[in-house]
Amino acid sequence: MKVHLTRSYGFSASHRLHSPQLSDEENRALYGKCNNPHGHGHNYEVEVTVAGPVNPVTGRAVDLVVLDRIIDEEILTPLRHRNINEEFEAFRGPVVPTTENLAAEVYRRLSGVWALVFASPGVMLEKVRILETERNICEVWD
Amino acid sequence: MKVHLTRSYGFSASHRLHSPQLSDEENRALYGKCNNPHGHGHNYEVEVTVAGPVNPVTGRAVDLVVLDRIIDEEILTPLRHRNINEEFEAFRGPVVPTTENLAAEVYRRLSGVWALVFASPGVMLEKVRILETERNICEVWD
Amino acid sequence: MKVHLTRSYGFSASHRLHSPQLSDEENRALYGKCNNPHGHGHNYEVEVTVAGPVNPVTGRAVDLVVLDRIIDEEILTPLRHRNINEEFEAFRGPVVPTTENLAAEVYRRLSGVWALVFASPGVMLEKVRILETERNICEVWD
Amino acid sequence: MKVHLTRSYGFSASHRLHSPQLSDEENRALYGKCNNPHGHGHNYEVEVTVAGPVNPVTGRAVDLVVLDRIIDEEILTPLRHRNINEEFEAFRGPVVPTTENLAAEVYRRLSGVWALVFASPGVMLEKVRILETERNICEVWD
Amino acid sequence: MKVHLTRSYGFSASHRLHSPQLSDEENRALYGKCNNPHGHGHNYEVEVTVAGPVNPVTGRAVDLVVLDRIIDEEILTPLRHRNINEEFEAFRGPVVPTTENLAAEVYRRLSGVWALVFASPGVMLEKVRILETERNICEVWD
Amino acid sequence: MKVHLTRSYGFSASHRLHSPQLSDEENRALYGKCNNPHGHGHNYEVEVTVAGPVNPVTGRAVDLVVLDRIIDEEILTPLRHRNINEEFEAFRGPVVPTTENLAAEVYRRLSGVWALVFASPGVMLEKVRILETERNICEVWD
Repeated sequence: MKVHLTRSYGFSASHRLHSPQLSDEENRALYGKCNNPHGHGHNYEVEVTVAGPVNPVTGRAVDLVVLDRIIDEEILTPLRHRNINEEFEAFRGPVVPTTENLAAEVYRRLSGVWALVFASPGVMLEKVRILETERNICEVWD
Repeated sequence: MKVHLTRSYGFSASHRLHSPQLSDEENRALYGKCNNPHGHGHNYEVEVTVAGPVNPVTGRAVDLVVLDRIIDEEILTPLRHRNINEEFEAFRGPVVPTTENLAAEVYRRLSGVWALVFASPGVMLEKVRILETERNICEVWD
Repeated sequence: MKVHLTRSYGFSASHRLHSPQLSDEENRALYGKCNNPHGHGHNYEVEVTVAGPVNPVTGRAVDLVVLDRIIDEEILTPLRHRNINEEFEAFRGPVVPTTENLAAEVYRRLSGVWALVFASPGVMLEKVRILETERNICEVWD
Repeated sequence: MKVHLTRSYGFSASHRLHSPQLSDEENRALYGKCNNPHGHGHNYEVEVTVAGPVNPVTGRAVDLVVLDRIIDEEILTPLRHRNINEEFEAFRGPVVPTTENLAAEVYRRLSGVWALVFASPGVMLEKVRILETERNICEVWD
Repeated sequence: MKVHLTRSYGFSASHRLHSPQLSDEENRALYGKCNNPHGHGHNYEVEVTVAGPVNPVTGRAVDLVVLDRIIDEEILTPLRHRNINEEFEAFRGPVVPTTENLAAEVYRRLSGVWALVFASPGVMLEKVRILETERNICEVWD
Repeated sequence: MKVHLTRSYGFSASHRLHSPQLSDEENRALYGKCNNPHGHGHNYEVEVTVAGPVNPVTGRAVDLVVLDRIIDEEILTPLRHRNINEEFEAFRGPVVPTTENLAAEVYRRLSGVWALVFASPGVMLEKVRILETERNICEVWD
């Protein structure tokens, strides 16, 4: 039987929403207080869902020690207690660190190393979900 | 990349579960204490999920200021601090304000105005989710 | 050693905030949307704290089966799935069912039966806490 | 309109993760502290989602009194305040009580009685979701 | 009867923990990742508790419209979506924006205006509680 | 200004409530399903509150790195993923691992090492709070 396992992790980070391709007025209209030049921050939650058949010996679809390690290396270490605009590679340029772009980037990073780590073809990265707050949440899947 | 963004909102309302097409005894058997003639109430949560490609300039699939305004006008203003049976149009007649019917009605109302507000064909209302309590939840999608 | 044990219970109820001793305008100014004539409702939480020395045989300051029964009889049965203004005795008259008055009334009711149920002088009703929502909370103690 | 209704239930249980088909060292590497020989436990949450069209008379896809009874008989009574390895049938043998296997077993048990209880062909058991903690969650569907 | 009413509010802000009176090494040892030069952020919760006798006409110890306005002006407007080190007056100098200092400052600010707003001597600011995360919480009272 | 800082930690453990000084019938009457011979378990939360004046240089009443280490050594390591009756010293004998006794024991253990770790006389262990579930909570203080 196929299962869908979700692991959830928290990290605290700061960001500022500001698009260099828009005027100051457009930025304020679009992002409101999130456009504040000095930035602000959140206790983010990131949830990663993997899918696959259960191994009858281990009762697992994927080794959780390995999954935790990959997420720690690829996602938590570069984001935990960081300024996303200045320290997380994908957002140093013009890409705005909205929850939408952050979820997409987390999905992309994990996809990039997935096949190297989990060789078994049936084990898939199914979904990434980011909660900026409990009231603003973004999911990405393929 | 396509993203699925969820916004969550709270409102407090009262209701009574009673079907005029059933006998008093059938109502009590079906709805239990929720059939109490004087009504009761809940701190509801409503979650609205929209899906679409991320705009590379704004980092958003949809303008959240607009989304919040539509949900405020169509859903929260008519429901917040209201008696659903007496004040929310769809439930003034024989339709019973179960979480199921409430979720369906919220989905229907948002669908009705969606195309007027979000002209871009790729931006879709994907799902409505209502939590009556943390233990009774209903989702509707197409 | 003295311990302070808290039991938490949920109930859903409706109410309306309206003081007969104030004008309609004053009521609206004071209570805002909570003054809506048709009422609204909440998923309330009530927390009851008892204090006392731990019995070395049972590891308890008070028999929780008895505590749960008293709270069920005195508080939950009269409030669960009820309209507080119409069905909970203390609020049928001019007393307004604010969280403040509700917490005071719950404390008063439990105090009234306490000595009959828990004869041991060291076992005390210490505190009642009511959460109308997670953002509006009232505590009463002696 | 089709709705997807989720009911959530809690139960406290203990378990130990240990596969008799692996060496002690492999067990420790795979399960970490969860392999502790004396076991440990959790406040589990189980969420059951049913899908179906809304009955226009009752406002329900399924009778919730019946659903609650079935889940109580099939899932909560055998699991509540139990040692899963020793008392829950499916895990007395070599099957390891991971969240993955537990979710699969709960789904299987409910599927086994579903057709007997809910004769209407449109009413389906859609999903089972188990939260071992808020950070380790498994879903099973068909 | 005296009641203790708590109102809870959320705000998102960024900060950096760094004491100019300590060496870089001491700062890193004391604050760990919170000393990261680019800062990080949190979804803070601030809870304000007021105590006083219940007014028999209104059922309130204090006018909540007034309380909310004061907290909005004094606390939320200067903190919401802000960088605490650069934008919140008390932390522009050498004072480190720990949860401890933030709670003390919020208490001090509210105390400073309290008597001007709530003339009735029995109505007291009782406690301020700040949650930086659900696992790091600071309370201040007199 | 004096502050009251609370740190919160989670651990999963199993236990059984059974007093050797009571008959089997008395045990079942008193503890209900918690008396199940095979045991069950919980995701416990333990909250430790310390009080003291804020150090003007560090913005802290106590070094949190040290506090976390002491709690890890004294409380979390002996309890995490353990069977409390068999593995936590104080409960190997006739003492019943109720939340009351567990909170008292955690308080006692921390008190025992407090003066060795925090020499400053103004820094006090103020309170220990244990949540067995969100609905059964015990606090101990002096």
